[in-house]
Amino acid sequence: DALSQGQFDIVYNFLSLVIASQLFTALFLLISLPRILPRYRNAITVAIIVCGIAAYHYFRIFDSFKEAFVTDALGGAGTYTQAAGASFNEGYRYVDWLLTVPLLLVELVAVLALARKVQAQLLFKLVPAAALMIILGYPGEISGDTGTRGLFGLLSTLPFLYILYVLFVQLTKSLDLQPAGVRQTLSNLRWLLLLSWGVYPIAYLLPMLNIEGANAWVGLQIGYSVADILAKAVYALIIFKVARIKSFADD
Amino acid sequence: DALSQGQFDIVYNFLSLVIASQLFTALFLLISLPRILPRYRNAITVAIIVCGIAAYHYFRIFDSFKEAFVTDALGGAGTYTQAAGASFNEGYRYVDWLLTVPLLLVELVAVLALARKVQAQLLFKLVPAAALMIILGYPGEISGDTGTRGLFGLLSTLPFLYILYVLFVQLTKSLDLQPAGVRQTLSNLRWLLLLSWGVYPIAYLLPMLNIEGANAWVGLQIGYSVADILAKAVYALIIFKVARIKSFADD
Ligand SMILES: CC1=C(/C=C/C(C)=C/C=C/C(C)=C/C=O)C(C)(C)CCC1
Ligand SMILES: CC1=C(/C=C/C(C)=C/C=C/C(C)=C/C=O)C(C)(C)CCC1
Repeated sequence: DALSQGQFDIVYNFLSLVIASQLFTALFLLISLPRILPRYRNAITVAIIVCGIAAYHYFRIFDSFKEAFVTDALGGAGTYTQAAGASFNEGYRYVDWLLTVPLLLVELVAVLALARKVQAQLLFKLVPAAALMIILGYPGEISGDTGTRGLFGLLSTLPFLYILYVLFVQLTKSLDLQPAGVRQTLSNLRWLLLLSWGVYPIAYLLPMLNIEGANAWVGLQIGYSVADILAKAVYALIIFKVARIKSFADD
Repeated sequence: DALSQGQFDIVYNFLSLVIASQLFTALFLLISLPRILPRYRNAITVAIIVCGIAAYHYFRIFDSFKEAFVTDALGGAGTYTQAAGASFNEGYRYVDWLLTVPLLLVELVAVLALARKVQAQLLFKLVPAAALMIILGYPGEISGDTGTRGLFGLLSTLPFLYILYVLFVQLTKSLDLQPAGVRQTLSNLRWLLLLSWGVYPIAYLLPMLNIEGANAWVGLQIGYSVADILAKAVYALIIFKVARIKSFADD
């Protein structure tokens, strides 16, 4: 498909926005780490790693995008067509998610500082489900066939719903044990998670709706980009806030 | 539009000046962070992040500029014309501002170390207004049409005036509570903010005046560059001075 100058620019700028957001959230957390009690540093360290992994992948995605779409027009003011011999690699996103989605759940469980056993039990459920969700989504994403996309999307939704079940039903008991000052923030965090994670399946559906080709693709890139900022950088900053409040409370 | 050798060189050197200013202000603050009381470290950390984000974007702007204007002349002593297939991406500035303008306000409020509630109230007004100002400016900036540029410039001016109102009317009460030694510095800081932020709408107007095309564009690039040094690097150093004085006073 061909992209107009406006479509090219908006994807380009959103990809760069994600790089800056992830990179500097990671840096902010790194600089702020000493102000957190040692007990909560693991959660923040995982958050730094998640944002770092995302920044790495977005550098790659950005370059892949620049190579894949080219124009001959003067001043770049023209239509961008697919380059010969270079394709935009959607796979980076799935490699990124395969690593970061389980880590985002580790981050959440770590900042709660639950009993070691409860923590292990939760992660034993959440981490494999997260990996399965991403692995099942991939064949659908790269397939040009709507049926295959639908089928794998559906399969991937099963572990997705299971994760939400664990977070919203099973985790609720543990939240009541958290200090009063952070309960509201933790509840906001869970809603942010639901809201931002919900964007991925919706963006995934876009190419299956009857939207004109390039628009659906541009929408999908913007959707994934915004969701990645919410689900990693904004999420990390809220985890940081929780860790700060708990550091004061425990002190 | 074509740039003369002199026009090309001046933009080129200003862009590099901004990179050096932002990068090394960030480094200076990072090295100096331990000499500040923990209470004020958040303000300085945010200042480091702001200068870092700006450095990232100026590296990109610099590369974008070098790709977008080319010449065949020997020794580069000729006219620079727009390259085929590459455009100068003005969007980087807006992505940068979208992240940094709210953070500059966070920085200011953080160094005041106000009561938690007053702080939250101020940011609740300032941050959304800042984001809105930048988002409304963007469609005008990328549009080639003077009417559109004027309309969005006007819309963007409304949140701009609101921010100035909050800073110069509502914040004045809080300043009286600050230690005597920093009151003068804080008042200077506010004037620097007004002076440097005021450059942006003026630079934005340049392409609408009847200046010969390339001159207006060169003026806009220099204006934004100088303003970015004042509004981020110089501003950060004044914030640092306030934090140092308050660190002594509290000690
Ligand atoms: C349900 C579902 C999906 C869910 C993806 C999710 C929930 C991804 C979350 C990613 C995050 C949180 C990334 C990092 O920040 C896929 C794979 C799109 C395929 C379609 C069905
Ligand atoms: C009022 C107005 C504008 C204001 C921009 C400002 C005030 C930008 C500040 C940027 C800073 C402080 C950057 C980082 O240092 C625009 C968007 C040009 C559009 C025209 C109207």
